[in-house]
Amino acid sequence: MESKEKRTDVNELGEFGLIDHLTKEIVLMNPSSVKGVGDDAAVLDYGDKYTVVSTDLLVEGIHFDMMYTPLKHLGYKSIVVNLSDIYAMNAKPKQVTVSMALTNRYSVEAIEELYEGIHLACKKYGVDLVGGDTTSSPQGLTISVTAIGEVDKDKISLRSGAKPGDILCVTGDLGAAYLGLQILEREKRLYLENPGIQPDLEKQDYIIGRQLKPEARGESIDYFEKNKIVPTAMIDVSDGLASDLFHICKQSNVGAFIEEGKIPIHPDTEKKALEFNMDPITTALHGGEDYELLFAIDEKDLEKVRYMPFVFIIGEVIQKSDGIKLHTTGGNIHDLKAQGWKHFEEKKENREN
Amino acid sequence: MESKEKRTDVNELGEFGLIDHLTKEIVLMNPSSVKGVGDDAAVLDYGDKYTVVSTDLLVEGIHFDMMYTPLKHLGYKSIVVNLSDIYAMNAKPKQVTVSMALTNRYSVEAIEELYEGIHLACKKYGVDLVGGDTTSSPQGLTISVTAIGEVDKDKISLRSGAKPGDILCVTGDLGAAYLGLQILEREKRLYLENPGIQPDLEKQDYIIGRQLKPEARGESIDYFEKNKIVPTAMIDVSDGLASDLFHICKQSNVGAFIEEGKIPIHPDTEKKALEFNMDPITTALHGGEDYELLFAIDEKDLEKVRYMPFVFIIGEVIQKSDGIKLHTTGGNIHDLKAQGWKHFEEKKENREN
Repeated sequence: MESKEKRTDVNELGEFGLIDHLTKEIVLMNPSSVKGVGDDAAVLDYGDKYTVVSTDLLVEGIHFDMMYTPLKHLGYKSIVVNLSDIYAMNAKPKQVTVSMALTNRYSVEAIEELYEGIHLACKKYGVDLVGGDTTSSPQGLTISVTAIGEVDKDKISLRSGAKPGDILCVTGDLGAAYLGLQILEREKRLYLENPGIQPDLEKQDYIIGRQLKPEARGESIDYFEKNKIVPTAMIDVSDGLASDLFHICKQSNVGAFIEEGKIPIHPDTEKKALEFNMDPITTALHGGEDYELLFAIDEKDLEKVRYMPFVFIIGEVIQKSDGIKLHTTGGNIHDLKAQGWKHFEEKKENREN
Repeated sequence: MESKEKRTDVNELGEFGLIDHLTKEIVLMNPSSVKGVGDDAAVLDYGDKYTVVSTDLLVEGIHFDMMYTPLKHLGYKSIVVNLSDIYAMNAKPKQVTVSMALTNRYSVEAIEELYEGIHLACKKYGVDLVGGDTTSSPQGLTISVTAIGEVDKDKISLRSGAKPGDILCVTGDLGAAYLGLQILEREKRLYLENPGIQPDLEKQDYIIGRQLKPEARGESIDYFEKNKIVPTAMIDVSDGLASDLFHICKQSNVGAFIEEGKIPIHPDTEKKALEFNMDPITTALHGGEDYELLFAIDEKDLEKVRYMPFVFIIGEVIQKSDGIKLHTTGGNIHDLKAQGWKHFEEKKENREN
């Protein structure tokens, strides 16, 4: 059924290129469709507030490996990564739907474990599981989650509102989730080579936890509300700080710089990166799956943000013509590259609302 | 990671049993969550109207076979089956999100064809594609669609509102989609046995079209609006008339009877069923994937429905204690059985909102 005339490999376009390509001609028809493809979530106008909707697919063998992913954690994470997209709109998630396709290799008890994690995340974040679909699959497990939330119309944070002079902040340390994946992959290789070996996961709880059981930054949204801050632009760090900063810059039509010395890196992350012969800054810039919020605020809100717990001021929004730069601790200025998806393909995380 | 103590096969519970099992303890927390799992769509309260949300997964090798499914039709159908769920709430669909996981066996051109069908359905039904996710997959193609619509609060039709004395109606003929699948499967077998053979699909357009390119009954919802009819209960016929009637009866706590002689069957369907040595009535009762609307109306609306185009009055809602019955043309009364999913497992269609 595929066209015989021309065959372009999907990897030539990359995920974002593909989405752009397939959706570039969409003209929204309904008044209730405020913002479509291209942000963390779609924005709908169904009343006094905006309704935001985000959807994600998690595929076995791509986004998770059953060899080292406890089902309960997987269920939890599948919810959290979607809620993170809702928070990235400065919205509060209220409902989720969960669909899954699975082979009969999964028993009812296994699915119960998965749902235990799903219910746990729903409870923790105060969202209702309101629907879904369960179907069989010829291979593996695929989980599709759609999250729905709401936000006051004047409080929504798109990716497109950053302006020169805005301050760039991130809600927590970066790079750990990526290193957690490296540890788990290494242990898997060792186990496959020698099934008698016991995994050595001691003192790596923090890093591995960031990979297997991430949390979404709902408390940041509460803080914004309480302190009357509306980020001028916001995105969740799923593809990596650099890649996600590029999304903001592209959609806001601005440039940015980041101070290398200000990028938050957990001591465990730093140590483990060196053990893997990786530059800790590189893992923080390009690792992804941290589910922290990267946001820009107007300069006038700087004092309010200074007292925000778990927030790191890492850079500034500048003119587009000034580019997207990294100011190194050594005093040099480098062009920042968005290497998220293509570069770290083995990372196997590629998402768009 | 699966529990070693007990292993219950998913097929023991069946799809509906599994969903019930996994969601039975859910208590909705948010005031905006009006109705959760268990109808064609979830019902949310985000303003003056209800927002309804429905989601479906279509999995290659389960819901479709690339050997005989043109990608454009597949894209079209993936949207339509979700819109059908929205219409089944007496709501109007406004937005969809589309996520897909696919192997690199699919070229960009192939995905373009798929999206051509998606865009075509969106245009025809007046819905906006507002988001999604594209990711790689180790095997095959999985499409996840979430549809969002709205309905005036006093006009929503749940599955639970039917009462004894209500009239049961269906919006079009039944059984063709199932037979279309049988034809396509037969041609596939013949082709695999002898690849030189040309498929004989002549004069089977109607039946095959019902399988490959179904439509959703938006015009029925328009008619209801124009004629101030609110069905007391409604569902779309995706699992089969009998199975879907059982859903209404269970949730409305009623019984029902259907007049065998009133079940609408297209002449092509009847002829083809006999060719396959099947009872046409059986295919209509249990075939599924017709995407017609099965609805109940109050007796007082009978006159209005009589003039509704493409509507067939097929039975009546009765007391629960009177059971769910088929009145045969021969004057007998049989218990109706809900055989949709389990019985027709080879049909490979199993869906819940």
